Parts: sequence; structure tokens; C-alpha cells
Amino acid sequence: MTRTAADLLPPDPPLGTALGVVAGSGRPGPSRIVAPAGTAYIDVGTLAAAQDGPYPTLLAEPSLDGLLAAGRPAWREVREWLASWLADPERLAPYALPHAGVVPVLPFTVADYVDFFACEQHAANAAAIAKPGATVTPNWKHLPVGYHGRAGTVYVSGSPVLRPSGQRGPGDLGPTRALDFEAELGFVLGGTTSGPVPLEEALDHVFGVVLLNDWSARDIQSWESRPLGPLLGKSFATSVSAWVTPLDELAGAWTEPPARDPRPLPYLLGKADRGLDVTLEVRLNGDRLSTPPGGDLYWTPAQLVTHLTTNGAPIRPGDLLGSGTVSGPRRDQRGCLLELTWGGRDEFALSDGTTRHYLHDGDEVSIVASAPRPDGGRFSLGEVRGTVLPAD
Amino acid sequence: MTRTAADLLPPDPPLGTALGVVAGSGRPGPSRIVAPAGTAYIDVGTLAAAQDGPYPTLLAEPSLDGLLAAGRPAWREVREWLASWLADPERLAPYALPHAGVVPVLPFTVADYVDFFACEQHAANAAAIAKPGATVTPNWKHLPVGYHGRAGTVYVSGSPVLRPSGQRGPGDLGPTRALDFEAELGFVLGGTTSGPVPLEEALDHVFGVVLLNDWSARDIQSWESRPLGPLLGKSFATSVSAWVTPLDELAGAWTEPPARDPRPLPYLLGKADRGLDVTLEVRLNGDRLSTPPGGDLYWTPAQLVTHLTTNGAPIRPGDLLGSGTVSGPRRDQRGCLLELTWGGRDEFALSDGTTRHYLHDGDEVSIVASAPRPDGGRFSLGEVRGTVLPAD
Repeated sequence: MTRTAADLLPPDPPLGTALGVVAGSGRPGPSRIVAPAGTAYIDVGTLAAAQDGPYPTLLAEPSLDGLLAAGRPAWREVREWLASWLADPERLAPYALPHAGVVPVLPFTVADYVDFFACEQHAANAAAIAKPGATVTPNWKHLPVGYHGRAGTVYVSGSPVLRPSGQRGPGDLGPTRALDFEAELGFVLGGTTSGPVPLEEALDHVFGVVLLNDWSARDIQSWESRPLGPLLGKSFATSVSAWVTPLDELAGAWTEPPARDPRPLPYLLGKADRGLDVTLEVRLNGDRLSTPPGGDLYWTPAQLVTHLTTNGAPIRPGDLLGSGTVSGPRRDQRGCLLELTWGGRDEFALSDGTTRHYLHDGDEVSIVASAPRPDGGRFSLGEVRGTVLPAD
Repeated sequence: MTRTAADLLPPDPPLGTALGVVAGSGRPGPSRIVAPAGTAYIDVGTLAAAQDGPYPTLLAEPSLDGLLAAGRPAWREVREWLASWLADPERLAPYALPHAGVVPVLPFTVADYVDFFACEQHAANAAAIAKPGATVTPNWKHLPVGYHGRAGTVYVSGSPVLRPSGQRGPGDLGPTRALDFEAELGFVLGGTTSGPVPLEEALDHVFGVVLLNDWSARDIQSWESRPLGPLLGKSFATSVSAWVTPLDELAGAWTEPPARDPRPLPYLLGKADRGLDVTLEVRLNGDRLSTPPGGDLYWTPAQLVTHLTTNGAPIRPGDLLGSGTVSGPRRDQRGCLLELTWGGRDEFALSDGTTRHYLHDGDEVSIVASAPRPDGGRFSLGEVRGTVLPAD
């Protein structure tokens, strides 16, 4: 990898056929579904109603919930229709909402949120940081390890993040001293399932991709996590990008997964077992910290969906899967401060001359990403951004 | 403890002012909120509308969601009004729905589900079973350990439980060989919060109590859980009783918590730190297996709520907290087969002459419970019941 996301992204990178939801718009009324287009948002529901578009009722809803429930045929039809309109911006002027006075909101109701641990580099680094010489747990290469996170604290990009308090160790309560981000891909699920989902059908249940920041308080997490996993060290906030990029938009981004040894069980293998070559970029107060390579994830989106339903648990529209931190083999590809500072051991300098182990109050973390188009160009998956506010 | 739940419960124990939701009723229409009363269900919404009851609009909703959002003053008013009507059953005849043709459904929308590990006896047994000689983790006596479960697979009592498949170990996929129940108390939360909830306010956010069976596949759970905790070993099904007993109904059940050493941090201490003297009883195919004592839980309901919000995560109406398995010091007080069979090592016999290590297909697990009234009598908290169906 020699190019980075920043090299590839123009100042206003095109966003493809992403969808989101805004509130406001200078006139009263409910939230509305929009497509970002340059300096405006296209009011997709009004466009569909006025121009004989598909699913006008679903697109007039105040969130993506109805569309997520409708399933892949609807998603494909809406995207193709929207793409044809976005290709001719002149015609869209009557449906454009100016950015001023409009606020992106969480575009869908999060049903269950499961955060995985799908990146080998991250899992190996985390193990070695916790215990020098340690490597991933024996189960790690057999199944995608993950846990349920808190659906009620998934927030839209731009929401501030209050420094959480908690038990940092025995008898020690206070604001976290080890506030971290985790740069992840998020997969927004839809449709309905009954029983285990075969790998070849798994991607039919992925509506699209968001950028996700799984904010983490490492001291709280470390103390609480045995034996049932993280709880309060994660549950204070998870941020997602305002725009959901339809999976169909990523047709040019599919890539071979990494070699696996041992070979996973057959239910986790098949043609749909492919990665997404999405390059993330993490910025702290504007400085580029790293460029995690999404295509390196050991476990692919189809595998996450299939594994999660192995026991028959149904998917609900609005289920959100996180990939876990994306990290590459190079230091400047690491997707969280835990790894970048090796558990807080090493500090690093920002361009303003200050140094960091973990996040300071006032720090702004931004994660952007881009992916290749089938035609060889690239497009943006938007941004997930948040600023740390002091503990109450 | 010398009395058991079965000794205390008449064949049709009174249920107090519990609320639930039924669908059907022989006439078309949405689900409705009901109160169980002997051989009938009282249509609470119709009663409130006809008899100038409180919050008629909330009580006419098809679930408890609106009532849960309304908060404690509404809960108290509704309960007192309902109690006065239930005291005079003759007057209720016009509002009684016969059981025939009516099906209890999940009475509220589960927002986030967090399952704790609040019983010391259970935690100690689980540790020793996993590794002979081991005891609870160092954090266990400092904070209530817990994890987020899957909200989308919380089912109402009576729902069948399909034996889940999953990875039982490296390279080994198939139906679980170690299907278990966990007898728990569940706390249904409501109202809204902003920031950490002080212990003295915590119970204002507990609407009521359900009986909860956290079905568990021990082989799947054991293999997947490191380092992020249980996922598919739990996420296939969690059953809750159809009736939610208002916390105010349990005014006679408060009891001193166990002695704690070390002393918990001050945010976890105060007058609201009291346990609930609820005696559970676990039945397998009608045989009484054990009588777990809810009053022995090390961490109390107020502590669970307060700890969960330490980091500022808001509570949403419909959040569900599980206590974790309730077990007492005696063998016949253990609340799961993991403990009763010591990890599957010991088998036990049922009255039909068959033996068990873990659950067989066709087994019916029922958990009932009772608690003392302020007047010295006892009342029932209903039942959570489920039958195991073979793997698909």
C-alpha cells in the first residue's frame, strides 16, 4: 500500500449513492431521508413522490427503518433510480436542501449491535499488549469472536463524547485516563431471516456500510472484562457516520480475503467470503494518525453475518455489526491508540507540539474512508467524527 | 431457609398487580394490556377507559412501552388503582377476557438487555467448574460483572426453544450437547435518565420484575467466550415470564444484602442497596430441581442500575437487566445444570427414571417464584416456561 486515503480523496469527494436522514431544513416537519450531493442534500422522499420514483412511501419515512425492512430487491431498485438522478444534478435543484439549518441524525433505529474482533493484526497486538509474548486466543482463527454492544448509545457522527467515568481499578472511581477510539467498518443489516443464514445468502442481508468509532475507555474495560467481556468500557458511546453507503455501491471494492490457517469450517467458506478494500484514515485534531486497510480483515462481512446466525438467532432490520478495530501490519496502519501507543507506553507528538498517550479533552477524532469504483476511480464513504468533552 | 417455593404456592397462587399483554381474545384487534386475575385476564385498557381510570391512553396501547416511558408516578398510580379493582373481583366481570383463545405475548419492546453475574455462589461455582481450585475473578467483589445480551431473541414464556447449533470446539460444528437453563430475576426498566443514576434514585427506574431463563449452550459458550465474553452460546433465546410484577408489589420482600468484603465503593452503597427475598423454583418435566434464593444475590437491583449508568449511558424504557443465575449454598438451591451437574460431570435422575447431564429434546423447564407480602402472606411472580425442540 503506497497511496493513502488522503491522497485519493478530493476536498469534496463524491459520496456515491449514500443515504442518510436529516432533521430541520428550515421548515417544520419530521426528519427526512436524504442523499448527500455536493453542497446540498437531496430530499429523496419528495423526489420519489414527485418523479414517480420507487417505494415513495418508504422513502417518505422519517428514517431508513422501513427501507431496511424491505430487503435487497427494494434496496437495489432505489439505488439504481437514485444513481440515475445523481448523474444529472441540474434536474435535482428543486429537491435540494441547503446544508444550513439541517442536522444529520442517526439514520436508522439500531436493533442489536454486535461488535466483532475481525482483524488479526489488532487481535494479535491487543493480546501482546495485555501480556507480552501472548498471541490470539485458541478460538480466534476458528470463528469470528465478538460481543453485543449497547444499541442505545450508538450516536450519529458529530455527537460529542463525554469522557466517561467508571472503575479504573480496585477502589478507584473516576474519569477514564485511557480514552481511545477504534476505527471500524460497520455493516447495517436488513430484511428478515429465519434460522441460520448460509454464507452465499449473507450479503443479501447487508444493506450498507457505515464508518464506526467504537470509543473505548481502556482502564475501565481492562478492569471489568473478566470473564464476561467489555461492558462500561465501551457502552458510553459508539459513533457512526451519518451516511450509509449501499453495499451495491461497493461492487468495485471486493477483494480476496487473507490466507487462513487453519482453514475455517465449511459454513464459513464460499464465494461470498470476500473482503472490502476500503481504506480508512484516522485524523486527530486534523493530523493524520493512520490509514487502516479494511481489505485486510481476517473475517469478511458475509462470515460475520453467517456466524452470527449459526444458532438460529434472527437478524432484525437495523442490526448493526462492527468489524472491530481495523489495523494493518505497519505502525501507521493501526486503528486505535491502544496499538499506536502500545498500551499507553509510547507517546506521540501532534503537529501543534502537544503529545498524547490517550485522548485529551477537546480532541477531535475523525475517521474518513474511500473505496475503489468498478471504473477505477474512488469514492468516499463519508466521515465519522466526534469531539471529547470533559467528564461531568 | 426451610420452606420452598412449592410449599408456599397454592395451585393458583395470586399474582398481585402484575401486568402483561395478550393477543387474540376471540375478537379482532391489536394486542392489549391485561392483568391476570384467577381464570381470566382483566382488559386493563378498557377498564380504565370505562371507569375513569388513570392514564387510559397509555393503558389502551398494545404493549407496556408507553407505560414504561411514563415513569414511576404513573406506575404507582396505575398500580394503586388496579389493586383496588382487583380487590373486588365481582365488579371486574365485564372486563374479563377468558384464557381460551388468548395468547400472552412479549409485554414490552426490549431496548438493551444486560445480563449480570450478581450471585456469588454461582460465580464461585462457575469458576471452580472451569478450573478446579479457581475462584471469582479479582474484579468480581468490586463491581457487578455483566455483559450485553441479544435483545432481539428475548421471548415470552411458552415459546419453544430450538436446540441451537454452533461451534462446540475446534473444527466441531453441530447441535449443542450442553443445553442449559439459568434461573434468574429480570428487572424491567423505564423512565428516562441523563448521566449516572445515584443509588438512591436507581429504583425509581425499575418498573418491575420478571422471571428470566437465560438459556445457555455451554459447549458453544465455553469455546467462543475468550476474550470478549459469551455471544452465540446465549444469543439464541432468553425467555421471560408473561407477567411483569411491579416493584411496588414487592414492598414486603426487601431484605438486607449479604455482607460484603471488601466494602464496595460509596457510589454502590446506600439505603436503596437491598435485596429482594424472592424464592425461585426450577422444575424439569414437573420435577422440582432446585429452589434458588433471590435474596442471596450479592449485588442488588439498585446497584445494577447505578453501576450500569456510571459511565453516563442512558437507560431507555424497555431496558432489561438479568441478575445472572441465582444459586444458594446448598446443592438443591443451584439455578442451572452447569452447577447441578458440576459441568456435566455428575448425572441426576428424574422421577420418570431417566437421567440428565444437560437438557434433552422435549424437556420442559419451568421457573416459578414467590415473595412475601407486607401482611405476611406470599404471592406468585408467575412462571417462565419453555420446551426444548430438536435442532433443525
